[in-house]
Amino acid sequence: MSEIKIVKNILKANDELTAINRERLNEKNIYVINLMSSPGSGKTSILEKMITQLSFELKIAVIEGDLYTTMDAQRIASKGVPVVQINTGGACHLDAYMIRDAISGLGLDKLDLLVVENVGNLVCPAEFEIGEDIKITVLSTPEGNDKPLKYPLAFEKSKAVILNKIDLLPYTNFDKQQFYDDVRSINDSITIFETSCTKDQGLDKLFDWIRNKVKEKQNKLN
Amino acid sequence: MSEIKIVKNILKANDELTAINRERLNEKNIYVINLMSSPGSGKTSILEKMITQLSFELKIAVIEGDLYTTMDAQRIASKGVPVVQINTGGACHLDAYMIRDAISGLGLDKLDLLVVENVGNLVCPAEFEIGEDIKITVLSTPEGNDKPLKYPLAFEKSKAVILNKIDLLPYTNFDKQQFYDDVRSINDSITIFETSCTKDQGLDKLFDWIRNKVKEKQNKLN
Repeated sequence: MSEIKIVKNILKANDELTAINRERLNEKNIYVINLMSSPGSGKTSILEKMITQLSFELKIAVIEGDLYTTMDAQRIASKGVPVVQINTGGACHLDAYMIRDAISGLGLDKLDLLVVENVGNLVCPAEFEIGEDIKITVLSTPEGNDKPLKYPLAFEKSKAVILNKIDLLPYTNFDKQQFYDDVRSINDSITIFETSCTKDQGLDKLFDWIRNKVKEKQNKLN
Repeated sequence: MSEIKIVKNILKANDELTAINRERLNEKNIYVINLMSSPGSGKTSILEKMITQLSFELKIAVIEGDLYTTMDAQRIASKGVPVVQINTGGACHLDAYMIRDAISGLGLDKLDLLVVENVGNLVCPAEFEIGEDIKITVLSTPEGNDKPLKYPLAFEKSKAVILNKIDLLPYTNFDKQQFYDDVRSINDSITIFETSCTKDQGLDKLFDWIRNKVKEKQNKLN
């Protein structure tokens, strides 16, 4: 029983700090995406493409969550946008505390869009709010169409799911119809995108959708 | 501070129960593999092939760890071996408590090999011993060669790593030499196998190695 109580306390403290992060980010009119997936689904590649395509119109910054290394932050920094690396030192997800500290390291004044690339883990990150406007989950075709039912929380909590590496579909036994059915059985209002970063497929549609979300928030808050 | 203490207590209790599980399994001369990976790396497919190939010589049983669903257990049961499904209800790894209960549901008397397929998660399962003889980590080529450095603990603690979906190598930018170098920089005594379940590549070598491990233990204990 005591273990359950402690976990609840941690979640409550996280929720309180999430509200503070959200207030701070709303004040600055910044749209925040919490990007989640298993390791290797293509989060960083999608982010690189997003920056290339959207940074002419939107001022973007990135928070990179990894257990160790700054490999992804280096990839993002080379695209010329501000990036803060959070190394969790083994911890399996980002939380609102880490984001509070990372935000302090970013100049928020002129930002439009902050993308938080969470730790590669389809389980734990979905349990923790960090102050985001929306969560987006990435799944790549080689991971298999059975993953939404096996790891439902990330799909349940996301506004959009990106089915990435669509170019590898012919080499896998991924059942796309089953994937769509399963995702919608978990979350019937979710938007599904199909993308390939290596073949530049489906990215325009995704980035248009994100651009609209950013503008919607700015119009609402202004 | 109190949070750290609690986590330590949980780990200590887990270690004690691990020792009890191990004693029980050693008494019965059963070799135990803790199979770990991200979601969708191919653990269940490798297991299906392993059962087909080894179950003529070895009596095999499986414990399936999943957050929800019995999809994988059904796949394994259709191969005609005993299987116990653990549904963690959202928890991100198996622990020694869950294994103790699952073992009680298996007839241990004539078993040679017990494979525990852990929850699909490259982070948390590596932190918890469950009573296994060895850990094996699976990584699939579409996940990218950078994963060992980013998620080192699973590779550090494993006796073998299986590089799966080797048939998809030509369609990815996976750098195999870098992967070998990185894995060996983390763990220089690790054995690396390259496999494809769809093309039946490299599996014989892997299963020979596992058969030898089972026999070694039986010879040592007898």
